[in-house]
Amino acid sequence: MAFLIASSSRAEEFAAFARDLDPALDVRVAPNLGKAEEIEYALAWQPPNGLLKTLPNLRLIVSVGAGVDALLADPDLPHVPMVRFVDADLTGRMTEYVALHVLYHHRRMSEFGELQRRKVWKYLAEPAAHEVRVGLMGLGVLGSAAARALGVFGYQVRGWSRSPKSLQGVACYAGPGELDAFLADTDILAVLLPLTPDTHGILDRRLLAKLSRRGRDARLPGPVLINAGRGGLQVDADIAASLAAGELYAASLDVFEAEPLPHSSPLWSHPRVVVTPHNAAESAPAAIVRYALRQIAALRRGEPLQNLVDRGRGY
Amino acid sequence: MAFLIASSSRAEEFAAFARDLDPALDVRVAPNLGKAEEIEYALAWQPPNGLLKTLPNLRLIVSVGAGVDALLADPDLPHVPMVRFVDADLTGRMTEYVALHVLYHHRRMSEFGELQRRKVWKYLAEPAAHEVRVGLMGLGVLGSAAARALGVFGYQVRGWSRSPKSLQGVACYAGPGELDAFLADTDILAVLLPLTPDTHGILDRRLLAKLSRRGRDARLPGPVLINAGRGGLQVDADIAASLAAGELYAASLDVFEAEPLPHSSPLWSHPRVVVTPHNAAESAPAAIVRYALRQIAALRRGEPLQNLVDRGRGY
Repeated sequence: MAFLIASSSRAEEFAAFARDLDPALDVRVAPNLGKAEEIEYALAWQPPNGLLKTLPNLRLIVSVGAGVDALLADPDLPHVPMVRFVDADLTGRMTEYVALHVLYHHRRMSEFGELQRRKVWKYLAEPAAHEVRVGLMGLGVLGSAAARALGVFGYQVRGWSRSPKSLQGVACYAGPGELDAFLADTDILAVLLPLTPDTHGILDRRLLAKLSRRGRDARLPGPVLINAGRGGLQVDADIAASLAAGELYAASLDVFEAEPLPHSSPLWSHPRVVVTPHNAAESAPAAIVRYALRQIAALRRGEPLQNLVDRGRGY
Repeated sequence: MAFLIASSSRAEEFAAFARDLDPALDVRVAPNLGKAEEIEYALAWQPPNGLLKTLPNLRLIVSVGAGVDALLADPDLPHVPMVRFVDADLTGRMTEYVALHVLYHHRRMSEFGELQRRKVWKYLAEPAAHEVRVGLMGLGVLGSAAARALGVFGYQVRGWSRSPKSLQGVACYAGPGELDAFLADTDILAVLLPLTPDTHGILDRRLLAKLSRRGRDARLPGPVLINAGRGGLQVDADIAASLAAGELYAASLDVFEAEPLPHSSPLWSHPRVVVTPHNAAESAPAAIVRYALRQIAALRRGEPLQNLVDRGRGY
C-alpha cells in the first residue's frame, strides 16, 4: 500500500515528514504516482481535477485544510471517506487569529497606527470588552474554540450556525430565520463558516448593512468584519462599497475571492482594513502529516475517523 | 464630611459620576476646596505637591491609577491609608493590552502590515503559541490575570516577581538572583511592574541583551518587549539602541520616560515598534468612582480596604 501526497503547496515537506514519522511507509508525491493501484491513502490540497479518480484502490482522502470546498468541486471525486484536517494546532492558530483581530479593532489599533505614523499622541475612547458584542458565524470546532477564548476577555459572545447549537456563555442563533436578529446583535462579526452552496457570497453588502449600528452610547465607531473562513463567502467589491459608504467601519480579511489579492483591490489600502495572506491558520506540516497518519491508522484498525466530511452538507 | 477630586485629568467627569452615584455626597473639585477641614476622602491623580497636606481631617486617599509612584513622590504626602485603583475594569483592559500585543508580535503583524502597504502577498513563518515563551515581569493582580489569558492560547508563560510566587501553569522566578535565568527563558517580555526605586530604569540595554536569542530552530525572529507598566521603568534611548543593534526585534510601548513621547524619539517611526498613548488600561471614570465610593464605605464600616499601598514597598 502507498500514501500519495497530492498537494499544490508544501508537497515535498509533507512527504519528508511522513517518511520521518513512518520510515516503513511508501510515500509518493504527485504527479509521480508509480503504480496507481498501490495507492490507498491520499493527503490532498487542490489536486488537479480527476487525479484522485485514477487511483482504483483509494480508501481515504485527508484534506490538508479544514475547508473541503475545493475538493468537492472536483466532479470526479471518488466516493471514498474524506476527512478534513482540524487539530489542536489548526484550532489554536485560528483562535489566535480571531482573538488578535477582535482585540485589534476593539482597541482601535488601525487608528492608533495612523496616529503613530503622524507622531500624534492622542487618546481615543475605547469600550470595555463587556460592552462589545462579538458575533461568530460558524460554531464548529473552530468557532467554539474562538468563543471560549473571547469569553475569557469578557466579550459578549453571540453565535450563528446552520443548525441550532448550545454553547456555554454564547447567545446562539440558528438558521436563515435568525440571521438578521444575530447581525443586529453584533458589533464585531467574525466568520469561520465552511464554503458551501448555501454560504457562497453570503458576506455581501445587504448582510453587512444589517450589522448593529448603535447610537451615541456606542464607543466603537461602527461594525467590524473579520473573515478567516473562505474567500468565496465574501463579495470583495461589496465589502469595499460598505466601507466606502461608512456602513462597515473596519475589517480584517485573511481570504479573498481571488488569491493572491489583486493589486487593483481597494482593500489593500483602506486605512482600517487589515489584509493577511490566508495565513490565519497555516498549520505546521508536521501537524498535518501526523494527523493524516493517525487517520490512516484508525481506518486500518476499523476505528472511527475524525472530522469525516458529510458531502451532502458540504463540510 | 466631603469627598475631594484632586485629579489632573477628567476631574469634572469623576465629580459628575460621584454625584450621580451618591447624591447625598458633598463632592468638591480641587482647587475649590471649600472648608478644607471638612474633606475626609480624596480621589487623586497627580495632585500638586503639598495639596493633600492642607487637609487636616483626611482619612483616605484613593489613587486613580494602579501605580502610586507619582503620589509617593510628594514629600508632604499625609500619613493616611492610601489605596490603588485596581478593579475588574482596569484588570480586564490591561489583560486585553497584553494579550493583543503578544499576539500581534507572535503573529508578526508589523511585518504583515509593511507587506500590506507594499501590496505584497507573502507568507512568513509563524511559530505555534506553545513554541513561544512569554515572560511577565510583575505577578500582582494584573500580571496574574495576563498569565491566565495567555495560558488559554497555549503560550509557555514565565513570571518574575520581587518575592516568590506560585501561579498555576506559570514557571515562576523571583528576585534579582533569578532575573537572568528568567530573561534567558523569555521570547516576549511583557512588563507590568510598579515603579519603585528598585525598578527605576530596569529596562535598559543590559537587561534587553539578556533576553533569549534562540538559534535556527526559533521561528520568531528575535526578542520582543511590551511595556504597559510605567515609563520610568525603561530607558527610552537604550530600547532604541537595542532595536538598532538587532538585539531587540520589536516592541509595544504604552509608556515612556517623558509623555507625550517627544517628536524627536526614534521610537515613533521604527517599523516594528508600536507606540500607544498610555492607554493600555484607561479605565472608565464610572468604574474608578464606584471603586472609590466602595473604599470609603468600607472605611466607614471598619471593613478592610482593597489594594492598600505599602509605602515601604512602593505599591
